[in-house]
Amino acid sequence: MVKQDRAIRTRQTILTAAAKVFEERGYQAATISEILTTAGVTKGALYFHFPSKEDLADGVIHEQDQDLPVPSRACKVQQLVDTVVLHAYRLRTDPLVRAGVRLALDQQAQGLDRSGPFLRWSDVGTTLLRQAQAQGELMPHIEPGETADVLVGAFAGVQAMSQAVSNYQDLPRRVSALLRHILPSVVVPSVLAAVDITESRGAHVHGELREASRPTPEPCPGDPSRLLTGQ
Amino acid sequence: MVKQDRAIRTRQTILTAAAKVFEERGYQAATISEILTTAGVTKGALYFHFPSKEDLADGVIHEQDQDLPVPSRACKVQQLVDTVVLHAYRLRTDPLVRAGVRLALDQQAQGLDRSGPFLRWSDVGTTLLRQAQAQGELMPHIEPGETADVLVGAFAGVQAMSQAVSNYQDLPRRVSALLRHILPSVVVPSVLAAVDITESRGAHVHGELREASRPTPEPCPGDPSRLLTGQ
Repeated sequence: MVKQDRAIRTRQTILTAAAKVFEERGYQAATISEILTTAGVTKGALYFHFPSKEDLADGVIHEQDQDLPVPSRACKVQQLVDTVVLHAYRLRTDPLVRAGVRLALDQQAQGLDRSGPFLRWSDVGTTLLRQAQAQGELMPHIEPGETADVLVGAFAGVQAMSQAVSNYQDLPRRVSALLRHILPSVVVPSVLAAVDITESRGAHVHGELREASRPTPEPCPGDPSRLLTGQ
Repeated sequence: MVKQDRAIRTRQTILTAAAKVFEERGYQAATISEILTTAGVTKGALYFHFPSKEDLADGVIHEQDQDLPVPSRACKVQQLVDTVVLHAYRLRTDPLVRAGVRLALDQQAQGLDRSGPFLRWSDVGTTLLRQAQAQGELMPHIEPGETADVLVGAFAGVQAMSQAVSNYQDLPRRVSALLRHILPSVVVPSVLAAVDITESRGAHVHGELREASRPTPEPCPGDPSRLLTGQ
């Protein structure tokens, strides 16, 4: 168990180093030896986890689309929005997520299958939109797969524009504007009115997840915080 | 005059070569000497037009956002749509335009100001949307600058997704879907109903421009083609 923990930590150390080197040099120019030096692990450890540079890039790309722990919402459009804004939040705050998105957009990365993240994100969106559709949250003409593709493609470009013009400072504002421009064509007005797509939603969802992952102490009987939190 | 023509041709030869090398190697890894070999021009000619690698990349990036010759339309939303779909058409058919867009999205291109094309395209969109607004074509709450930014960012990502999953084969379909998802939130319904955002619009606008650039022969009186073309 301890050994397994160490392997997970080593894998993460290597991925973080690879993300750093890919961001600095680009995929084409990056070398395994530079990643090795940055990670400070043995050659054997690196090749055990990632047999090639392509595997390293795949590993970094996959980090961005790990199953996101957005809590299930009664309103599936809100759950979709929360998935989008949490990804935007992680993009601003987690270098590994950022490197994965950049690799997927690196049109110069030859030999790397960059369609993967687009298609996986599109699957996540399609699933949520189908659920929303089944609950009557969507306009009748919507095809979930097409709308998911539009959202994923548009998001990829909006983040690239935000990175180019403000180094991600204006990302929450741009993502909120994108959602305000697309959702009215997709969602029925009564649902739209109840969905939170404000700029601060990403930080809110992130905070909620951080709270949820804290070990909750058993509340003492008569503890006043019980009343406040409703436990 | 002949001398000037030759200078323009040399400049274009160098830009085409630079586009090719940037696409193959990426900005970081590309070298001026490789561009020189590909272009087959003298060192002196290259440095006369482009003193540095950054100038070469700027030259390639600028090719994509030359003033597009989309004809003025009575409906400014249609003119905006035509600008977008013509750009998509050129992206599929002109390697120089494609290289410029890729450079702007190359998040690994250090020392290159990649915000330029985003901001210039956004200006083009803002101007057309302001004109549309003055003619009452837009919903009352629309801010032209914000909507232009959403369109430009979203387009950049949709083209990247199309390139990654189909090497641009599905770009007309994806651009049409993007417009169908964004315009209903922006344009008043009566105008929306009259705007052509079908997949074939890009090829149509391109054909129209090609026709317009042909020298029109003086029609003979009684020439039957006069009746057909309405001239």
